[in-house]
Amino acid sequence: MQRERILGIDPGSVITGWGIVETDGNRLLHVDNGGIFTRQKEFHHRLREIYDGIQEVVDTYQPTHVSMENVFVSRNAQSALKLGHARGVALIVVLNAGLKVSEYTPTQIKKAVTGSGRADKEQVGLMVQTMLGLPEPAQTDASDALATAICYLLRPKVEDVLSDLTVFPPKTKKSRKRRRR
Amino acid sequence: MQRERILGIDPGSVITGWGIVETDGNRLLHVDNGGIFTRQKEFHHRLREIYDGIQEVVDTYQPTHVSMENVFVSRNAQSALKLGHARGVALIVVLNAGLKVSEYTPTQIKKAVTGSGRADKEQVGLMVQTMLGLPEPAQTDASDALATAICYLLRPKVEDVLSDLTVFPPKTKKSRKRRRR
Repeated sequence: MQRERILGIDPGSVITGWGIVETDGNRLLHVDNGGIFTRQKEFHHRLREIYDGIQEVVDTYQPTHVSMENVFVSRNAQSALKLGHARGVALIVVLNAGLKVSEYTPTQIKKAVTGSGRADKEQVGLMVQTMLGLPEPAQTDASDALATAICYLLRPKVEDVLSDLTVFPPKTKKSRKRRRR
Repeated sequence: MQRERILGIDPGSVITGWGIVETDGNRLLHVDNGGIFTRQKEFHHRLREIYDGIQEVVDTYQPTHVSMENVFVSRNAQSALKLGHARGVALIVVLNAGLKVSEYTPTQIKKAVTGSGRADKEQVGLMVQTMLGLPEPAQTDASDALATAICYLLRPKVEDVLSDLTVFPPKTKKSRKRRRR
């Protein structure tokens, strides 16, 4: 099996976590992790810090694939808008680098790392530390990024293939009505 | 007065409008406008279309400044998140090009173009057409982008300077309580 080097990203306008995990097909190997702590007050400057930070990570570690959390819900529209900016900027760096991005729900990530989709943040952090043999827990956002990278590597790829296939036509309201008769 | 060439952008994940307006200090001159219609189904591919599209506009027209609408509200968190992605990607192109970006509320833009902050979309479109001497109305998103560029050029700059100054210390809850006694 070809060596894979996954970049996990946990974007945020204040802190953007990242983590690099490698596999030779048998073991998970921790390469590096970190957080891009935006220091500028001005939002536009923060976006540039995120852009430059992710670009540096990509240039330094040359990942083969990217894994990110897919955000479905958000506290409110204003924070979703901000997160969207940060996410869009992080995404465009890796897309421009020709990398493919897999996205997973928080539940999928928790399940892949701990075995339970309902694990709390601390449990995920401890499992990441144990799985990668880190001497101490990584910074929260960096740890979440590592968990996202691990999720890509541990999820049985067949599930992702199956979810793309439509074996039976999807149930529509019409077909449901017909069945009731 | 130095010639200014303003790029107005109205970002969206489906259509991103843009418009270039110039001034020699006396007149508004329409340079060009258009819409980046994302044709790809996949959201990541759309972001790249927006990135490439704005990059092409910047390369072709070499604007001196950028003007964008500042979004404060959104229908819901999910659409705000999508818009944030598109906005972040458009922003990073112009920020990386070393351009400064001014942002205005919808009310400020409407007021600058029509004289009323409560003007409807059609009125704004007609005023943009008249002010720039366009032979026909521009496509809606391109027209909004032109309005945003015009707003930057027509707003008295002193207002923007004043809004940045804090002449009196901001009222806090504490100071209000004290006054009540």
